[in-house]
Amino acid sequence: MTKDHPRMTSREYHPEDTVVEVRGVRIGGGSFAMIAGPCSVETEAQIVTVARAVKAAGADLLRGGAYKPRTSPYEFQGLHEKGLDLLKIAREETGLPIVTEITGIADLPLFEDIDILQVGARNMQNYDLLRELGRSGKPVLLKRGLANTLNELLMSAEYILANGNDRVILCERGIRTFSDELRNTLDLSAVPMLREMTHLPVIVDPSHATGNARMVPPMALAAVAAGADGLILQVHNDPDHALSDGAESLRPEEYAALAKQVRKLRKALL
Amino acid sequence: MTKDHPRMTSREYHPEDTVVEVRGVRIGGGSFAMIAGPCSVETEAQIVTVARAVKAAGADLLRGGAYKPRTSPYEFQGLHEKGLDLLKIAREETGLPIVTEITGIADLPLFEDIDILQVGARNMQNYDLLRELGRSGKPVLLKRGLANTLNELLMSAEYILANGNDRVILCERGIRTFSDELRNTLDLSAVPMLREMTHLPVIVDPSHATGNARMVPPMALAAVAAGADGLILQVHNDPDHALSDGAESLRPEEYAALAKQVRKLRKALL
Amino acid sequence: MTKDHPRMTSREYHPEDTVVEVRGVRIGGGSFAMIAGPCSVETEAQIVTVARAVKAAGADLLRGGAYKPRTSPYEFQGLHEKGLDLLKIAREETGLPIVTEITGIADLPLFEDIDILQVGARNMQNYDLLRELGRSGKPVLLKRGLANTLNELLMSAEYILANGNDRVILCERGIRTFSDELRNTLDLSAVPMLREMTHLPVIVDPSHATGNARMVPPMALAAVAAGADGLILQVHNDPDHALSDGAESLRPEEYAALAKQVRKLRKALL
Amino acid sequence: MTKDHPRMTSREYHPEDTVVEVRGVRIGGGSFAMIAGPCSVETEAQIVTVARAVKAAGADLLRGGAYKPRTSPYEFQGLHEKGLDLLKIAREETGLPIVTEITGIADLPLFEDIDILQVGARNMQNYDLLRELGRSGKPVLLKRGLANTLNELLMSAEYILANGNDRVILCERGIRTFSDELRNTLDLSAVPMLREMTHLPVIVDPSHATGNARMVPPMALAAVAAGADGLILQVHNDPDHALSDGAESLRPEEYAALAKQVRKLRKALL
Repeated sequence: MTKDHPRMTSREYHPEDTVVEVRGVRIGGGSFAMIAGPCSVETEAQIVTVARAVKAAGADLLRGGAYKPRTSPYEFQGLHEKGLDLLKIAREETGLPIVTEITGIADLPLFEDIDILQVGARNMQNYDLLRELGRSGKPVLLKRGLANTLNELLMSAEYILANGNDRVILCERGIRTFSDELRNTLDLSAVPMLREMTHLPVIVDPSHATGNARMVPPMALAAVAAGADGLILQVHNDPDHALSDGAESLRPEEYAALAKQVRKLRKALL
Repeated sequence: MTKDHPRMTSREYHPEDTVVEVRGVRIGGGSFAMIAGPCSVETEAQIVTVARAVKAAGADLLRGGAYKPRTSPYEFQGLHEKGLDLLKIAREETGLPIVTEITGIADLPLFEDIDILQVGARNMQNYDLLRELGRSGKPVLLKRGLANTLNELLMSAEYILANGNDRVILCERGIRTFSDELRNTLDLSAVPMLREMTHLPVIVDPSHATGNARMVPPMALAAVAAGADGLILQVHNDPDHALSDGAESLRPEEYAALAKQVRKLRKALL
Repeated sequence: MTKDHPRMTSREYHPEDTVVEVRGVRIGGGSFAMIAGPCSVETEAQIVTVARAVKAAGADLLRGGAYKPRTSPYEFQGLHEKGLDLLKIAREETGLPIVTEITGIADLPLFEDIDILQVGARNMQNYDLLRELGRSGKPVLLKRGLANTLNELLMSAEYILANGNDRVILCERGIRTFSDELRNTLDLSAVPMLREMTHLPVIVDPSHATGNARMVPPMALAAVAAGADGLILQVHNDPDHALSDGAESLRPEEYAALAKQVRKLRKALL
Repeated sequence: MTKDHPRMTSREYHPEDTVVEVRGVRIGGGSFAMIAGPCSVETEAQIVTVARAVKAAGADLLRGGAYKPRTSPYEFQGLHEKGLDLLKIAREETGLPIVTEITGIADLPLFEDIDILQVGARNMQNYDLLRELGRSGKPVLLKRGLANTLNELLMSAEYILANGNDRVILCERGIRTFSDELRNTLDLSAVPMLREMTHLPVIVDPSHATGNARMVPPMALAAVAAGADGLILQVHNDPDHALSDGAESLRPEEYAALAKQVRKLRKALL
């Protein structure tokens, strides 16, 4: 490989939109996907309840964390293998494909039957992990790092494509700025900019970006208007008692109302 | 005055939305305003041509700079008094109220007949100027500084209200971050956050924020979806030869197409 | 003036170091200056007490704010004209030249007898003010804005030089970043970078940058090691009861100890 | 483990300075260490030449990258295992302990005989890697991420300590800000702040922070004055032809001159 290798993530290299398809759900190329679910998988009752609720409200995929990278080693780190099993039960119950985060190569065999493997912001430049995900051929949801440029995000995706896997979905989830009134600053201009720069689908996570459930609906609608290919949203049946990120989680009925508005908005934009 | 003075800009102090009205145009409280025009007023032909074009496409107000704060003292600084006169001619021709920037107290008498006085990002914390604008009673469009929090923006507005003038419109115009692919990072979460914090109307300037005309339509639509009370957009009849900011200016026909989409989107959001 | 005008602040235009001299005190070109005093002038007893203490510890100039730009209109804004008078009394008592902030052109006549006029971070791009200070011919201490590049700082200085005044001292006082453990991030690399870019003297304000008196001595010493031409430090006789910025003020005996270390360090660096 | 677990990295938990010792070299607790060497190990001749030169100039440890995390998959990624072998040859020739970066758990067996394992900025929150390094018991040089707070840096160190290894050295290497005149912004206030917050040694990397060899000496001296426990510096025998980061590398004779100044400065600060 040389420095002048053509960039496989670029529009020049591949002009047509890439569509990532999992279990019949398509993301990109005009197909919009709603991904919803709790920050962490906590119990079978919790994940199945939320999965049914978001399914009823029209969600396309279920999200839920089993391996949680947390700033402190003393915080809840997820249910690990058991969490993956609960996600599969929820998938069986609802038919929704599942999206969950992977934090290390060693866990890859456990993710064999997971539909989309998420790489979190902290691991966006964990190139050893990216290379392995490239070789795995599995769909990857790659989140932008807190202080990474769009070019760096694409170069990280390039590690996956260069290793043989073009099933990559990019995700804007807020950047770190001086602003201190919300958790992060959602950079929606990333959506139309990435649209120009790359053929890969681009989705938006307004839940982690804002850290504030009241801000999620307006920012979700704004992401749709900016041209996003999908949304990933935190939904919890009991946000006040969530083991992580309760403050930014929508209740199922709030999610349903937002999903309806999203459909209306998308229709108007056609 | 004491530190514990109630904040006049807060929702607690004044729960109802403030509506700023100029020559029959209302901004805020559910009334949406489109402000369009060139970065700088250059010639009578230019400003009248643009004014007519944006008026035909449904704009509510005309913008144009006569006093231009420029980073370098050797760049074009605007036509000053003559620029104000040309704006008034364009107003006469079209009926559109005019918005233009003021950079110092000494110029205030020249702005007697201007409809909305803009305070630019660089002067957001020029408190001497804000106090005088408070005393003037004239409508003020206050832009957020490049590295100012929402609380600081509101405290700057507070200088105007505390001096007797509540005709203040706030404007998000991009913040300065590490991101280097566009000029600034448009912080659309400012819109729903300010909606909670204050009763003042909030508009968005996607032109200065992105510095890239191709990014203006998606970000304008996103601002509408986020709940903005209006947009301020750069439109130039000949962007390639504009004396300032041509790269981010829409052509009149691009503006007309965007304005149509904005109306469609607003209807869907009702 | 044209865009290609040579930059008067640049090393190319003026290779030799500029030395700003006031009442026999020299800043720049190898001459190091210690500027010390309270954030705000409060009473005659306070300013004279502090002035004597810092004079005894070898300070070269006295600082103290009379016109205080404060984020909230309800905070203490300084003693204004009376504050200037108290500074002059302290100068008479100690012989120390005085440095104090100006916030608007209208106040310029009151600053006739002030030795160095400071432009604060918020007004770094208040070009109307900079132009007038250029015409005034008086020494100016120009602070870097919270989110301004070094090029922008130099362009602001250029407004002063282009209007006939090269008695300009630049000041690094911390920039706004994501970092939230101190008030701002002191960017000491600005010192050697500006040394390459310009002939103007560069001083550092570790007090405002850190907002934490315990951090002031190490950062002051670091500024000296980085090559600064001077330091501006907050010193208060009773920090716990200061009307502003007590948390970052050194007590007179702490200042004296630091000043001694600074001299030792400068000697080692020769 | 619970959220309220006492923080093992804190001064409260462990008031005395931690000293990390490798092959007789001590870092922390008043012992200052100079770490020098090329960005990448390229050839035996290169690494041995540089190692001898920095040893002659008094360096305490040799640095050199064998596993290079690069933004693009098409850039030079290091010599991997062969690079580690060349480092060991250079150690044999000079007696200098060696410091080199590890990027994934799978490589850990190859690092058995490496003296200090570096975790780069991109992997600061790769918790799977940190946990394994905790279990390994080997000295770790942990670099601050580009947009991480000091609390986050300490929480990452906590993952190592909580897994049984307190041989951790922290490293400030520049943060990402709006500033665009140098590669990153060296945050030297991190040094005295970390000194208060933790007992672990803190060193500074002015080479990566500035990306500019002319800025390295003043910023290295500033780091010493701020109280750093050591410096890590890039030195290359032929910077113009370096395979990576040549622009920020010192020539051996420049390194020798700087090392002499550092010793003089440290003596003055005692």
